Amino acid sequence: MKPSLVAVDWGTSSLRAARIAADGTVLEERASSRGILTVAAGGFPQVLQDTCGDRLAGDSLCLVSGMAGSRQGWREAPYVACPAGFAEVAAQLTWIEPGRIALVPGQCCETRGVPDVMRGEEVQVFGALDLLGKRDAILVLPGTHSKRVHVEDRRIVAFTTFMTGEVYALLRQHSILARTLPADEPPLDEAAFTRGVLHAREAGGLLQAAFSARTLALFERMAQAALASYLSGLVIGEELRAGAPSEEPLVLVGSTALTARYALALRTLGQEARALGPEAGWRGLHALARTLEQA
Amino acid sequence: MKPSLVAVDWGTSSLRAARIAADGTVLEERASSRGILTVAAGGFPQVLQDTCGDRLAGDSLCLVSGMAGSRQGWREAPYVACPAGFAEVAAQLTWIEPGRIALVPGQCCETRGVPDVMRGEEVQVFGALDLLGKRDAILVLPGTHSKRVHVEDRRIVAFTTFMTGEVYALLRQHSILARTLPADEPPLDEAAFTRGVLHAREAGGLLQAAFSARTLALFERMAQAALASYLSGLVIGEELRAGAPSEEPLVLVGSTALTARYALALRTLGQEARALGPEAGWRGLHALARTLEQA
Repeated sequence: MKPSLVAVDWGTSSLRAARIAADGTVLEERASSRGILTVAAGGFPQVLQDTCGDRLAGDSLCLVSGMAGSRQGWREAPYVACPAGFAEVAAQLTWIEPGRIALVPGQCCETRGVPDVMRGEEVQVFGALDLLGKRDAILVLPGTHSKRVHVEDRRIVAFTTFMTGEVYALLRQHSILARTLPADEPPLDEAAFTRGVLHAREAGGLLQAAFSARTLALFERMAQAALASYLSGLVIGEELRAGAPSEEPLVLVGSTALTARYALALRTLGQEARALGPEAGWRGLHALARTLEQA
Repeated sequence: MKPSLVAVDWGTSSLRAARIAADGTVLEERASSRGILTVAAGGFPQVLQDTCGDRLAGDSLCLVSGMAGSRQGWREAPYVACPAGFAEVAAQLTWIEPGRIALVPGQCCETRGVPDVMRGEEVQVFGALDLLGKRDAILVLPGTHSKRVHVEDRRIVAFTTFMTGEVYALLRQHSILARTLPADEPPLDEAAFTRGVLHAREAGGLLQAAFSARTLALFERMAQAALASYLSGLVIGEELRAGAPSEEPLVLVGSTALTARYALALRTLGQEARALGPEAGWRGLHALARTLEQA
């Protein structure tokens, strides 16, 4: 029997690990708050040992994705340039212990004369392709820095980062809109959200569209409780309007709450989508491990 | 001899006043930090008296523009709906003391189903028209909330607010970009600024374009000192790309530093512009006073 894989998603603010059987079954999951920002230089081996050392004692392979491979992490795993698929990434792992523990590199691409990067999302993309049995897809991974990823023939050929979640939080908490918006995050008001999505499509950019959250409140034409949903629709709508329509459903990968919100925005814009959870990342690391075995 | 006009620009964070002769000459200016946020309800008459009471003792007319006419100000001066010119605004002043002290109302308009508002900028627009002897113009008033104003036959027919200055400050100070950007505001790097303007035109919106300030730094493809200028170009470029090109030069009204930056951005986009200082506001209040005399 093949040894199981220890898959690790080591991000800025959290550390998650899973033991995965040779057939892809997730046998066990662990999570801790030991994100890379909490780990001093040199402290990474011990934190990994503390989290899942019992599982590493055998001859398990351990693949670590996410910000642990960044300059501020365990060791810098240089970005792999797009186009890149399973084979290119498997060939460019940064090995901490040869054959045992490796950091999965992020990817970089160049669009309109500027670089773009991702680190961690690529394994979710690979996992989604594996789960769906697809060779070609357009994927959207919503979040603080959303990614829109184009895959052709199982290789990531291009992607774009949008500062959607971060700009929403900035407008929500630090802008003039903070004075009008409710302090807590009320449940999604679907009508206000879709109105925001549609207004973002018509308006001349977010700088202009965002001010409408203020004026609608000023003239009492939208209830205060609905304004956060409206602003969320504006910001997500601004992200999604940049993407060309696709005949194939887009693939959303992320938390249920966020992918449901994006799916609603996409439907409002006439675009079908299907959603997968972030556990696609485990499947992506498993697929990478299989690629290594076959290499 | 006609009495002089006491013109007051009473904003959120400052109070400025000028005595203006019948021919439009500014005889004297005063400024204080008594913006409306520092004035308790009911305290406005006293603050005005303290600032320029000696000039109000005669039979001078006093016209007050800006946020003093907002709900949080001296008294709410209801917005005048566009299209509106000198006559409509003069007819809808909110008089504090009939014939003596009046609040100039802001303007509102409706675009794509949402309202837009300005308060204070309209007198700068009127002043610019008066100074330039123009009946038709497209004006840009840069700032925290920039305004793009369309004037036909000396009436403001439509305008749009862009949260340009505010979003720049948010990204600069509170976003992930703050980690990379220099803490102080270095002198404008024109090459980086125009590169930002051009990238904003090509990119699919600011959510996407802004991330390039991070990646250019990450790959050390732009000097840290140039990044703030680049980001400024991205945000101003995002505002300006929304406007249709105009054969006539645009009219910029604002501080020299800001209008010079906008003029450079516009030239980069192939659009000519001419600039006026914010003192156009005095001229606008003077023109309103003349309209009142003629009414």
